[in-house]
Amino acid sequence: MTDALKIGIAGLGTVGSALFRAITTRHNLLADICGREILITAVSARDRGRDRGINLEGVTWYDDPVTMARDADIDVLVELIGGDADPAHAAAIAALTGGRHLVTANKALLAKHGVELALLAEENGVLLNFEAAVAGGIPVIKAMRESLTGNSVTRVYGILNGTSNYILTRMQRDNLGFAECLAEAQRLGYAEADPTFDIEGYDTAHKLSILTSLAFGTRIAADEVYIEGITNISIDDIHAADELGYRIKLLGVAQRTATGIEQRVHPTMVPKGSMIAQVEGVTNAVTIEADILGELMLSGPGAGGDATASAVLGDIADIAKSRPGHQHAPALGRPAATLEPYQRAQIQSHEGGYFISLKVDDRAGVFAAIATMMARNDISLESIVQRARPAGSEARPQTVILVTHATTESKVRAAVDGIKTEGYLSGEPQVIRIERTRES
Amino acid sequence: MTDALKIGIAGLGTVGSALFRAITTRHNLLADICGREILITAVSARDRGRDRGINLEGVTWYDDPVTMARDADIDVLVELIGGDADPAHAAAIAALTGGRHLVTANKALLAKHGVELALLAEENGVLLNFEAAVAGGIPVIKAMRESLTGNSVTRVYGILNGTSNYILTRMQRDNLGFAECLAEAQRLGYAEADPTFDIEGYDTAHKLSILTSLAFGTRIAADEVYIEGITNISIDDIHAADELGYRIKLLGVAQRTATGIEQRVHPTMVPKGSMIAQVEGVTNAVTIEADILGELMLSGPGAGGDATASAVLGDIADIAKSRPGHQHAPALGRPAATLEPYQRAQIQSHEGGYFISLKVDDRAGVFAAIATMMARNDISLESIVQRARPAGSEARPQTVILVTHATTESKVRAAVDGIKTEGYLSGEPQVIRIERTRES
Repeated sequence: MTDALKIGIAGLGTVGSALFRAITTRHNLLADICGREILITAVSARDRGRDRGINLEGVTWYDDPVTMARDADIDVLVELIGGDADPAHAAAIAALTGGRHLVTANKALLAKHGVELALLAEENGVLLNFEAAVAGGIPVIKAMRESLTGNSVTRVYGILNGTSNYILTRMQRDNLGFAECLAEAQRLGYAEADPTFDIEGYDTAHKLSILTSLAFGTRIAADEVYIEGITNISIDDIHAADELGYRIKLLGVAQRTATGIEQRVHPTMVPKGSMIAQVEGVTNAVTIEADILGELMLSGPGAGGDATASAVLGDIADIAKSRPGHQHAPALGRPAATLEPYQRAQIQSHEGGYFISLKVDDRAGVFAAIATMMARNDISLESIVQRARPAGSEARPQTVILVTHATTESKVRAAVDGIKTEGYLSGEPQVIRIERTRES
Repeated sequence: MTDALKIGIAGLGTVGSALFRAITTRHNLLADICGREILITAVSARDRGRDRGINLEGVTWYDDPVTMARDADIDVLVELIGGDADPAHAAAIAALTGGRHLVTANKALLAKHGVELALLAEENGVLLNFEAAVAGGIPVIKAMRESLTGNSVTRVYGILNGTSNYILTRMQRDNLGFAECLAEAQRLGYAEADPTFDIEGYDTAHKLSILTSLAFGTRIAADEVYIEGITNISIDDIHAADELGYRIKLLGVAQRTATGIEQRVHPTMVPKGSMIAQVEGVTNAVTIEADILGELMLSGPGAGGDATASAVLGDIADIAKSRPGHQHAPALGRPAATLEPYQRAQIQSHEGGYFISLKVDDRAGVFAAIATMMARNDISLESIVQRARPAGSEARPQTVILVTHATTESKVRAAVDGIKTEGYLSGEPQVIRIERTRES
């Protein structure tokens, strides 16, 4: 049997501890499967004294992960520190330049430094695996990097943030407002005390930028993602979507277009009967459309200590099964030096259907004025609905909802700006893009 | 760059031709990704003269695939002949014993000879890849073999036969009978002239037996699958399921139980709102429940030339990226010699809910007799529904539908036999198992 594969884990939070337990309790099974032992020989974390329910006897402790990555007797650094800055970045660099494989769950690090790290791994003949960085336990990286080899991807989209999907699901299912659902998510540990990163779409954007690179063979461009969060989605929007046959999901979408590649994160209407609409709670899902394969959808747990540890363990096992220096496995699907520059398609040229909700004064001619403004901007309407006020209600304003046929973002913005200028709106217009799914 | 990987394709039907096209038209992209060229140097098929729309110039033709597997200048045999007998079996053996990698889409071959082939591959230090053999383009083999390493699987189930799912979907959607939908499937090329293999569940059973081995580390036991097809599913059953909140799907299910491992293929009630219920038409889907990861679902095209070719191409690319003799990659997830014997859990001990539909004479006391028989067999009922006859209809008999709480197959059979014996049934009882999904 080949020598044991020696692992150093940097970061012993929920994921690190779950991984430690999985590797130690399944030692013999893993050795059988991988043809060699997997041994944790070093760990690093902030607080040495904390009880994590794991036995660190015989494992070398490092206070500094960068020192561990550089000096420890390890074949693989498992980076679970998080963040795109040091020490995560420095530890990753130290491991790769020292000829050690790197396994990481760190989407922020990859979104910012992924190409640099892939180049370093390839120069040093080591592997860089990061299944856990996108959609947690779902093996989407492996699917795109390996299973889809030779395919040309046309679109990849998904629910990549469990916090946002939990909130939207609760709003829809239980007829609750955004704030209430956010508070509930925080109480359950699904949302951070400061939830900005999740609910404003930044987390989804990081993950999407990695998928974009794998899908289109382009350099990671996390700074060039168009981003809208879910904070302005109201229960009224959810109801209106439902009546029109849609669910609202926070999607990350990357798509090849005539003018470049779109990367966008925004609340999206998807047909109620589509599979992506059934993805509820903290579950994640990714759909990939490719020219040879067709449409592939993967769904599963997008976060959580165990699910993430499972993905990390799969990455480690792949390294254990391979024999260093004898495998060609470019981290981003093709050699990092051959990745093309990312060419951005501007959101203004996005083509698709739109849901537009307008709060209007209840007076004669408004309907006609709205329809005229749409026509003037060459937008054809699939439906226009004036929502009935509750019986006996004196409430104003009324809501007018438009669903457009395929048009462009720039036309929709021009039309909505025109309507705003005409002065009969009594609130900010709500504009939500509709995403076509294969089934629809 | 490493030497080119030389491929011989045995079988040039829809899949073989699609694969040939994909490899030749994407030659440079594949070379970039894999770090070496992939070249088709030999092919074998029955009819040399047939026009397949591919250019075979410079490719060595073999009339006999076994000769090709043994003698051709190839590193990889791609076996697309089909069937568990010769020449597919002999060609596979010849390739492996000659030190050539084997890629196959042949579920029948694997169901019968998979362990033998895996042993041969491991003895000869070559790879055996078969992603296309189960669920077509869906990378479920890779997910189970690699991504889930270290996990203990508790259940795997799926829609593994597109023909059957197409028929059941059409019945439900368009309110049509079984025969009509089968004829339609045949007209569209989704069903063979003799559809037995698909609609009687044998195809699903073959695929399931491969998944069972990967899930539980047991030897493939395709002969020990409990099988019921969909031919006796009526439009009335579909309607009754719908009213009770279910869809009927032909599922293959493998599950660890106290008495062994269940392998069963049968029409199954799944909750309407579950993701598996949304899998429509010829689409396939597989759900895997594992102890570390949780629940993972994959869905996509289960058949078709291009989708299957895509999976085959992924298998070939994995071989191109690896360096022969320097990778430990047991075909069935762990070394074939360490696979445990399959221990069958008998269908009689299956536990779950049941849907029971009884055609009864419309006379006093029948309801009570049925309920009594259920109680006598220790079966508690979730609901009992007497379906209303159409107004003014003189039609007899009436239908009584029972939905049970979790019970066992043996109790249900005893109860139904008891009811039959009492002599007030006017037709064969219909019994359909209900499958619990995580969401439900």
